[in-house]
Amino acid sequence: MKYSTIVIGDELLIGQVTDTNSGWIARHLSPLGWEAKSVKVIGDDASEIFNAIDEAFAATDVVLMTGGLGPTKDDITKATLCQYFGGEMVLNEDVKRNVDAQFERRGIPMNRLTAGQAMVPSSCRVIQNEVGTAPIMWFERDGKVLVSMPGVPHETQTMMQRAVIPQLLKHFHSDLDIEFRTFVVIDYAESALAEKLEDYEKQLPEYIHLAYLPNLGIIRLRLTGAHHDPQVIAAAMEQHSRKLHEILGRSIIADGDKPLAMIVGERLRELGLTLSTAESCTGGNVAHVITEIAGSSDYFMGSVVSYSNDVKQRVLGVDSDTLDTCGAVSQPVVEQMACGVSQLCHTHCAVATSGVAGPGGGTPLKPVGTVWMAAKVGDIVVSQCLHLPGERKQVITRATNQALIMLLKLLQQQ
Amino acid sequence: MKYSTIVIGDELLIGQVTDTNSGWIARHLSPLGWEAKSVKVIGDDASEIFNAIDEAFAATDVVLMTGGLGPTKDDITKATLCQYFGGEMVLNEDVKRNVDAQFERRGIPMNRLTAGQAMVPSSCRVIQNEVGTAPIMWFERDGKVLVSMPGVPHETQTMMQRAVIPQLLKHFHSDLDIEFRTFVVIDYAESALAEKLEDYEKQLPEYIHLAYLPNLGIIRLRLTGAHHDPQVIAAAMEQHSRKLHEILGRSIIADGDKPLAMIVGERLRELGLTLSTAESCTGGNVAHVITEIAGSSDYFMGSVVSYSNDVKQRVLGVDSDTLDTCGAVSQPVVEQMACGVSQLCHTHCAVATSGVAGPGGGTPLKPVGTVWMAAKVGDIVVSQCLHLPGERKQVITRATNQALIMLLKLLQQQ
Repeated sequence: MKYSTIVIGDELLIGQVTDTNSGWIARHLSPLGWEAKSVKVIGDDASEIFNAIDEAFAATDVVLMTGGLGPTKDDITKATLCQYFGGEMVLNEDVKRNVDAQFERRGIPMNRLTAGQAMVPSSCRVIQNEVGTAPIMWFERDGKVLVSMPGVPHETQTMMQRAVIPQLLKHFHSDLDIEFRTFVVIDYAESALAEKLEDYEKQLPEYIHLAYLPNLGIIRLRLTGAHHDPQVIAAAMEQHSRKLHEILGRSIIADGDKPLAMIVGERLRELGLTLSTAESCTGGNVAHVITEIAGSSDYFMGSVVSYSNDVKQRVLGVDSDTLDTCGAVSQPVVEQMACGVSQLCHTHCAVATSGVAGPGGGTPLKPVGTVWMAAKVGDIVVSQCLHLPGERKQVITRATNQALIMLLKLLQQQ
Repeated sequence: MKYSTIVIGDELLIGQVTDTNSGWIARHLSPLGWEAKSVKVIGDDASEIFNAIDEAFAATDVVLMTGGLGPTKDDITKATLCQYFGGEMVLNEDVKRNVDAQFERRGIPMNRLTAGQAMVPSSCRVIQNEVGTAPIMWFERDGKVLVSMPGVPHETQTMMQRAVIPQLLKHFHSDLDIEFRTFVVIDYAESALAEKLEDYEKQLPEYIHLAYLPNLGIIRLRLTGAHHDPQVIAAAMEQHSRKLHEILGRSIIADGDKPLAMIVGERLRELGLTLSTAESCTGGNVAHVITEIAGSSDYFMGSVVSYSNDVKQRVLGVDSDTLDTCGAVSQPVVEQMACGVSQLCHTHCAVATSGVAGPGGGTPLKPVGTVWMAAKVGDIVVSQCLHLPGERKQVITRATNQALIMLLKLLQQQ
């Protein structure tokens, strides 16, 4: 089953908010065999909304729409949907009760603008929003379905899982079995990996497709298989996944689309080891991505962000002579940081970073993007210096990834 | 001038990568009076690309296209553009030299797939990509312009600024003067703010528009003015900005679209104060957002992420009896964390967080989303407990924002 996504909001068109709903929807509908045909982002404008629905219905039978449902003036989605699907705006008592209850729970008084959220087109069936005030609206016309959902990611995501996805599956049923498998690959640039896999790709049956998804030093490979016979697809996907592992060996660090920090965390848990981080140029981002993973408190003990040299010395015990002689961005300093933090936090493992994230602070010998990083597992300490491209945020993200990859490689040898 | 953006890539449609190029483009063209009409995200598919260009040219005279230009097989954008605009694929010597030079600089051998990047449609004018290998292509037809750029954000952003934006401005010239002003607002829910500003909005002239951009506890208000006379627009924007400040007072924490961490950093710099953070549930994210700001090393000294109670006690000096009696998520612990880290890092100011980010770890008395946070400036320490909605990542982001807002309010009183 193919569907189109329409994302509504001036704030998205102007670039002040980034749409993440369409990606979330795709990631959650793909495994069910539902394929996104296109995503269209438009402003809060009646004729744009009207045209976008026309275009989307011309291409697919299902249209998923997010945004344009807040309580403020520039939201005109509901009026346009009412015009498109017919009927008139009516007060929905269930929505009103839901809005009342939400406000009571939060202990804030309801105001007139929010009360307007209970008005919906008579042509829709309402799905109650259990985690917000904007109602979800299900429209049907000539066998086609449009579902309008709020723009707040948390609300759309929760209600897609609780109600919209189950109801879509019940309404339609797919006759093509689709399977996805993702592999997280390190050690290769995209073009080198493509060359390495050229013969492999040629031998894939026409119903299996390989895609490359590179992102800041890590490449995700995705195999997509689509076939009417689920047994054919299951066997072929298994065979070609095995073959990919044979070709790439340890460069595949995970099956499935997992964040790097989760892969590292699973390995630490397996080995019963604990981790701490000592961060200069990454400024806490290594600790942040590690602790974004639920359950990370099982293996992550803590971090010292030693942005000043003073903190490097006094808290992490970095030698002041070494700092004077070699500078903060150097091999001995980053190794001492790793050892210092693992001693301080009583952990088996540690990673440390010290570099020049930019835009200032570069020198001819240590230009912006120069990052020293160290990883420690037990008594083994390894370190490397990388020259990372991009702006400040990219340098921070790349350095975070590379530091975690160093640690993972060391853990693979345990 | 209005334009359409087309974003190409299976990886975007499937939701494994989030498009940030269209937002970047909008943020950089808006101040020049260029308005995005729509953004369409499509897969690596010739007929989809063909249709998307047709649709976009029907709506606007300028089409900006990103993605679909990597060296791997699933990239068919160039062949489709050649078919659309005519001509044939030819070897471009300048592109070949550029690709050669890039590979030489990085010290890696060129391979056959990357060499293919030098092939371009004869119907385009090439703009050299100075920071990557995929060429930028400028097509014209019937007075309309399409520019095709790589999907890698760093490359598109750099080359838009260096070449594409200047050339677009030279080619077209806008006759409508557009001005944007953004204000960062705290203390209000979206609907309460809308109610507060209802009369203000009614009194705006029809050529000035107010938009609400709420995001995890912070609302950005954007005034957009569009008028043929630049003097009219300048005077009106000035007048209505002043009025907004009169109505909202200190709830406007910044003019301009600045990240919260930058607003806090500017205030610290003004006052000549230094900052450290002690983080439990935010896991380093407060330090991370602070250090994403260039120049933050002027005021930020460091952070202790005390994920384990052991680190809270030994490194930050939190009292073990207090931990036993009150638990880690409590007022005395978070206040001791703030004092401990400011002492350890020798800073005037500190923020500290301790909470239950979820999904596990909640109790009836301290459910998931319960976060204690403290802010310290000199001898003054304030603390509060919030119950934050959403999943783990949202709790972390909201707690980060609220902790920084607490600190900012304390700094405003200095």
